[in-house]
Amino acid sequence: MKENLFQKLREKKNRIIEIRRYLHAHPELSFHEENTAKYIADFYTGKDCDIRKNVGGNGIVVTIDSGKPGKTVAIRADFDALPIMEETGLSFASKTPGVMHACGHDGHTAYMLILGETLIEMKDQLQGKVVILHQHAEETPPGGAIQMIKDGCLDGVDHVIGIHVMSTMETGKIYYREGNIQTGRAYFKVKINGKGGHGSSPHMANDAIVVGSYFVQAVQTIISRRLNPFDVASITIGSFDGKGSFNVIKDAVVLEGDVRVMTEDSRELVEREIRRLLNGLQEMFGITYELDYLNDYPVLYNDPELTEFVVNSLKNSSISGVTGIERCEPQPPSEDFAYYAKERPSVFFYVGAMPADGKAYPHHHPKFNINEDSLLIAAEAMGAVVIDYLREDDTQNGNNSVQRLK
Amino acid sequence: MKENLFQKLREKKNRIIEIRRYLHAHPELSFHEENTAKYIADFYTGKDCDIRKNVGGNGIVVTIDSGKPGKTVAIRADFDALPIMEETGLSFASKTPGVMHACGHDGHTAYMLILGETLIEMKDQLQGKVVILHQHAEETPPGGAIQMIKDGCLDGVDHVIGIHVMSTMETGKIYYREGNIQTGRAYFKVKINGKGGHGSSPHMANDAIVVGSYFVQAVQTIISRRLNPFDVASITIGSFDGKGSFNVIKDAVVLEGDVRVMTEDSRELVEREIRRLLNGLQEMFGITYELDYLNDYPVLYNDPELTEFVVNSLKNSSISGVTGIERCEPQPPSEDFAYYAKERPSVFFYVGAMPADGKAYPHHHPKFNINEDSLLIAAEAMGAVVIDYLREDDTQNGNNSVQRLK
Amino acid sequence: MKENLFQKLREKKNRIIEIRRYLHAHPELSFHEENTAKYIADFYTGKDCDIRKNVGGNGIVVTIDSGKPGKTVAIRADFDALPIMEETGLSFASKTPGVMHACGHDGHTAYMLILGETLIEMKDQLQGKVVILHQHAEETPPGGAIQMIKDGCLDGVDHVIGIHVMSTMETGKIYYREGNIQTGRAYFKVKINGKGGHGSSPHMANDAIVVGSYFVQAVQTIISRRLNPFDVASITIGSFDGKGSFNVIKDAVVLEGDVRVMTEDSRELVEREIRRLLNGLQEMFGITYELDYLNDYPVLYNDPELTEFVVNSLKNSSISGVTGIERCEPQPPSEDFAYYAKERPSVFFYVGAMPADGKAYPHHHPKFNINEDSLLIAAEAMGAVVIDYLREDDTQNGNNSVQRLK
Amino acid sequence: MKENLFQKLREKKNRIIEIRRYLHAHPELSFHEENTAKYIADFYTGKDCDIRKNVGGNGIVVTIDSGKPGKTVAIRADFDALPIMEETGLSFASKTPGVMHACGHDGHTAYMLILGETLIEMKDQLQGKVVILHQHAEETPPGGAIQMIKDGCLDGVDHVIGIHVMSTMETGKIYYREGNIQTGRAYFKVKINGKGGHGSSPHMANDAIVVGSYFVQAVQTIISRRLNPFDVASITIGSFDGKGSFNVIKDAVVLEGDVRVMTEDSRELVEREIRRLLNGLQEMFGITYELDYLNDYPVLYNDPELTEFVVNSLKNSSISGVTGIERCEPQPPSEDFAYYAKERPSVFFYVGAMPADGKAYPHHHPKFNINEDSLLIAAEAMGAVVIDYLREDDTQNGNNSVQRLK
Repeated sequence: MKENLFQKLREKKNRIIEIRRYLHAHPELSFHEENTAKYIADFYTGKDCDIRKNVGGNGIVVTIDSGKPGKTVAIRADFDALPIMEETGLSFASKTPGVMHACGHDGHTAYMLILGETLIEMKDQLQGKVVILHQHAEETPPGGAIQMIKDGCLDGVDHVIGIHVMSTMETGKIYYREGNIQTGRAYFKVKINGKGGHGSSPHMANDAIVVGSYFVQAVQTIISRRLNPFDVASITIGSFDGKGSFNVIKDAVVLEGDVRVMTEDSRELVEREIRRLLNGLQEMFGITYELDYLNDYPVLYNDPELTEFVVNSLKNSSISGVTGIERCEPQPPSEDFAYYAKERPSVFFYVGAMPADGKAYPHHHPKFNINEDSLLIAAEAMGAVVIDYLREDDTQNGNNSVQRLK
Repeated sequence: MKENLFQKLREKKNRIIEIRRYLHAHPELSFHEENTAKYIADFYTGKDCDIRKNVGGNGIVVTIDSGKPGKTVAIRADFDALPIMEETGLSFASKTPGVMHACGHDGHTAYMLILGETLIEMKDQLQGKVVILHQHAEETPPGGAIQMIKDGCLDGVDHVIGIHVMSTMETGKIYYREGNIQTGRAYFKVKINGKGGHGSSPHMANDAIVVGSYFVQAVQTIISRRLNPFDVASITIGSFDGKGSFNVIKDAVVLEGDVRVMTEDSRELVEREIRRLLNGLQEMFGITYELDYLNDYPVLYNDPELTEFVVNSLKNSSISGVTGIERCEPQPPSEDFAYYAKERPSVFFYVGAMPADGKAYPHHHPKFNINEDSLLIAAEAMGAVVIDYLREDDTQNGNNSVQRLK
Repeated sequence: MKENLFQKLREKKNRIIEIRRYLHAHPELSFHEENTAKYIADFYTGKDCDIRKNVGGNGIVVTIDSGKPGKTVAIRADFDALPIMEETGLSFASKTPGVMHACGHDGHTAYMLILGETLIEMKDQLQGKVVILHQHAEETPPGGAIQMIKDGCLDGVDHVIGIHVMSTMETGKIYYREGNIQTGRAYFKVKINGKGGHGSSPHMANDAIVVGSYFVQAVQTIISRRLNPFDVASITIGSFDGKGSFNVIKDAVVLEGDVRVMTEDSRELVEREIRRLLNGLQEMFGITYELDYLNDYPVLYNDPELTEFVVNSLKNSSISGVTGIERCEPQPPSEDFAYYAKERPSVFFYVGAMPADGKAYPHHHPKFNINEDSLLIAAEAMGAVVIDYLREDDTQNGNNSVQRLK
Repeated sequence: MKENLFQKLREKKNRIIEIRRYLHAHPELSFHEENTAKYIADFYTGKDCDIRKNVGGNGIVVTIDSGKPGKTVAIRADFDALPIMEETGLSFASKTPGVMHACGHDGHTAYMLILGETLIEMKDQLQGKVVILHQHAEETPPGGAIQMIKDGCLDGVDHVIGIHVMSTMETGKIYYREGNIQTGRAYFKVKINGKGGHGSSPHMANDAIVVGSYFVQAVQTIISRRLNPFDVASITIGSFDGKGSFNVIKDAVVLEGDVRVMTEDSRELVEREIRRLLNGLQEMFGITYELDYLNDYPVLYNDPELTEFVVNSLKNSSISGVTGIERCEPQPPSEDFAYYAKERPSVFFYVGAMPADGKAYPHHHPKFNINEDSLLIAAEAMGAVVIDYLREDDTQNGNNSVQRLK
């Protein structure tokens, strides 16, 4: 059955690429993916599946019910884009200035649509149910996952599986790791209120840009002096909004930051220290501040047992062009897939997608691109895992059978 | 003749205020004052004067020629507004969000129009010529003055006189000072180029916000450690444009700054040190930078002899509501009136305009306002000086006669 | 035989404590441990062993040769103290103001002397040789280990084993870890030369304290922005020598720093960035600098096979008061034991020494103290490992036999 | 009589220089000038004057009483040295390492001793009294002046006059200014208490050097952003005492600073802001601090009337080698002569002492030196003023007579 699935997917490879390129040209920002959501829903319309729209926002849940008893596995693809001005020069580059699929979600959606279509075609060979989570808003907290969960997307689901294509990992390789694999995250936004005034009379004003700059520097000491050097954390001030008139002392600036941690202790440490720094700056410079501090995406935890099952399934499948299935290091970015993993035993794994010329730009870079061959690999890999998972009588896999997962 | 002028002006006080309120409600940014310029030109249309439009841009030069021999005095009023969101709550507040007359140029124009109209009415009593300089773009370098001068606005002019209404000075008082009275200025804009990347992987990027913050702090040391404490200078970074996505390391930031000095040595010191700091930051953090550094408005120099003449004229006039004519300290802001003063012996003096309730907001503040009584004072004061100046046989003023000015 | 050794050691417990207290009261700084070295040499004088003095400086190498064939194991104890003013209030506190055994080397030496004496007493029961490395100058780069190695202390030695007592680890526990267990280190000293002058005339001088402060802050960004958050490193400026007269601008300051890394890549990164920061500061502020940068102690690597042997030996021994033998995390400090481990397969492990009242001060703290019960544990643990190691026919330990180590 | 005095002084020029060189070779720190005080007292012993020792410490007050009625003028010379390591290479350089006459007080004392001796010789030609204030401890707050005043040194004194030789002013010129001429000063000392620890575990400690560095930088913003650019003030952190062990996180640092102001408002501003910064740093970084803040030397105020008298006296005297008597700008350093000026109408003026080769090092520089010709000028200048001052019937000086001073 897996070979049958692989054959069908290979025949549709060009359609995967077409869909990916269409989506790439038409990116939409998190929470504003109305057209993409419509595109996805339209794709499934008329096919033999259940389509639920507007799940927790723009999310779409497609259920393929074999009609036979069995387990239910959810597979997830995200579809939002980023506020980045594309610089790839691709023929199918973004048509929306300042918005770009710079994280591969176009590819996720493309392979998943074709995989979904194919699983629907093969529905009578399946058991149990496949739930496809087309998720919006992965890039922007609070993210789409938590909203879709609240709206019931995991009802009846036993396990959740996700894939990310990785421009910096070799195409042909699949990577996995059990346990904590991606960082937890917090987001903060702070407005520092000084007092405006004429540029030539600093003593009559209170320069918010100077105080904002002190904050940026003081934040560095949290990582350099307060964090255990053996722990992992990062704090980035990604936005310093202090645009003004050159000769007017700025009355207020707004800074936004991104916090990554690998433990809950570090999460608490960073928040406590940021609050302490701001309280101190208030006193030092006589400013006031308004802080929104949102602890969002959790640390992403791959269930060790399910990870072992997935790895065995992949190793026992002849996926096109796969040259290795390897254990990798934890990955720095956060993923709101972590919310699914808090609710159900889950696995999130990586499909190498480095461009053929070896020139890889990191995710979120204006020149980010993927090797489109990776999309067929992703489709086959996810398809293989789904089929192995749903098979009831898979005893020949020994310890790694679905049964062990119960 | 002065009393006659004063009488006429007093009768038109309400019209001054009406004009000021209309202009206040319809502010326009420097170099974009087309509607204000049209309003001014229309005002003079049909009156017995020469109107020259588009002088050096949006400037308007109105010449009142008595037809009789004599000297020529230019009097100047500026009419541009600032990129500030008004917060006064006035009934005639700005109708253009983000643009505001927060420096009193609405009032300057209002009193000058009515003074001009009145001088035209009294033209046959005058000698020589009065040239009214309605100047655009005082707030933004390179400023309108230098452009109007290049376009000939001072041709035939002997001396130039200007007034600024001051919200922080008591209404009823007129202030003057000879010599260097307002700072010279430089403007700079620097783009710091780091390298963008994902917020969770700082080692793959080069955070331009962190480097920008170092620059802001290092700049403070120019004033605190490199400037002679007995000299006068200030440096304000008025704009730190680093808006971005909270979880994307910023690839570049743009900072704009304002430099004020009282001597040419300090001007050179500040520029040299800013360049040195940027060169050093380039090495420290591996960034590159692009700097535009523009030395613009000169130090404003009041001709001592003309100042003495003006002060005597004011003291010998019965201007409505004036309670004192006093020598003041140098003023921190720069003024592109300084360009006229480099070309002709000139005087620039101040008319107190503190609101009646004593709650004065500084110039360039979102709640800036003036006491409208100050506008009649300005009109009478400037009128008195003009009449004394043009009188040939003014011997009763003794040492302060016009003759001494030759 | 182990029980026999343990019995002898237990009877000498008070002597261990007496020696430790004597050494504690008479601490000597690294490279200046002449009296301590003499004390150690005198201890062995007259005993049936070979004593070699002044090995690579103040080091002493004691060889206990059973006269029978076999392997040779080196066991190491360090004996220098720190430039810290003791604040423990102990009856046997340091008699030398500003010098203190604040790292437990007094205890290391005390247990090792008594263990050495006892092994000499049991010499005819042993096989092969035991080489005791009484090492000077562990605390101060370049350290005593490298010097003793150059002077031949490892000639003929097969493996090296070391112990550290740990005030922050529970007494009764022994901790181990294979692979990289302690950080590598670099030391740097930088003199920043500005220009002195009178405090009231900063523009005539060049304030080295201000530049030194910028350096301290800029260094923080190496950890916070240049290091991979998944790597481990720390940089401490432990000394900022800028003492001067309050009203004289400081012409020069000297800073000394400590760098810890867990990989060679990080080591190179930190040095490169520190040099870059100083070059940039030179340009920014017009100072000059003189930098000594010394990459000293390597990352300490525990041989996995030998670690397994040691752990099995410990688990198979009934050491007084031991309640657990546990794997621990890597430890932040550096150890010049790492030099031995580069030359021979080695193991360095930890003996808990938290004071009985649970109030543990960290190593290098003015109130640092150890639970003296830990010293008997250390003596028995090291003794057990030595005896198991030297036994030829230890087959009952299965995979963990000495044979596997060959 | 003045010519007589000048003649005597010129004959003793070599003795002035000898004394200066002896004192230069034997400098003593403020409040520790016992030997210098003894040298001065011994000088006067046996001469016809009243010698009072240990006035307010090491001060010496010598009274030359003509026995005739008249006014009493005090003239002051200070005699302490600085904690600076001399680098002049002079044959008579300091014999005490780390202590140096780098401010010219050796010269002040030398000329004053010879002037005193000569006035004693001419005592019967004088009227009234001359009180010579040989003051200790000018360099170190609280200074010797305030102590000598408390101990009665101004009892019966009408006016006080002082001179400073200036290495940066041309030899042959005398400079004066009425009104505020030297800055007021404050001294502060702050201990920042963090928490010590091992260099490799910053999270267990609290790095006082990092916090001290933040303080140094934040202090810069007081001058750059809080001070009116038209005011005069400076803040120097002259001492950052953070010497320690390179690999031990520093538990505490001590900083000492020097504040100069020209108004009482600025004095209050600086103190308030320093306290605010420290309070904020306490919160930001969780440190504690101990601050000693001492407002010491007042702004030095030259009585305008007495200044005019002195200037006229100087202009009417034929002082050797004087080429000009000019008005100068205010001087940045503080002077505890200001305490006398708060008690009595006083004048402090400057005698140029630039070395003949034109290579002038500023005061407090390790290479500071003076042109010794300036000492005869100082002696003649002070002598001239004293004689003119004490003359009762000096009517030919017109408006500038002593009588006008009453």
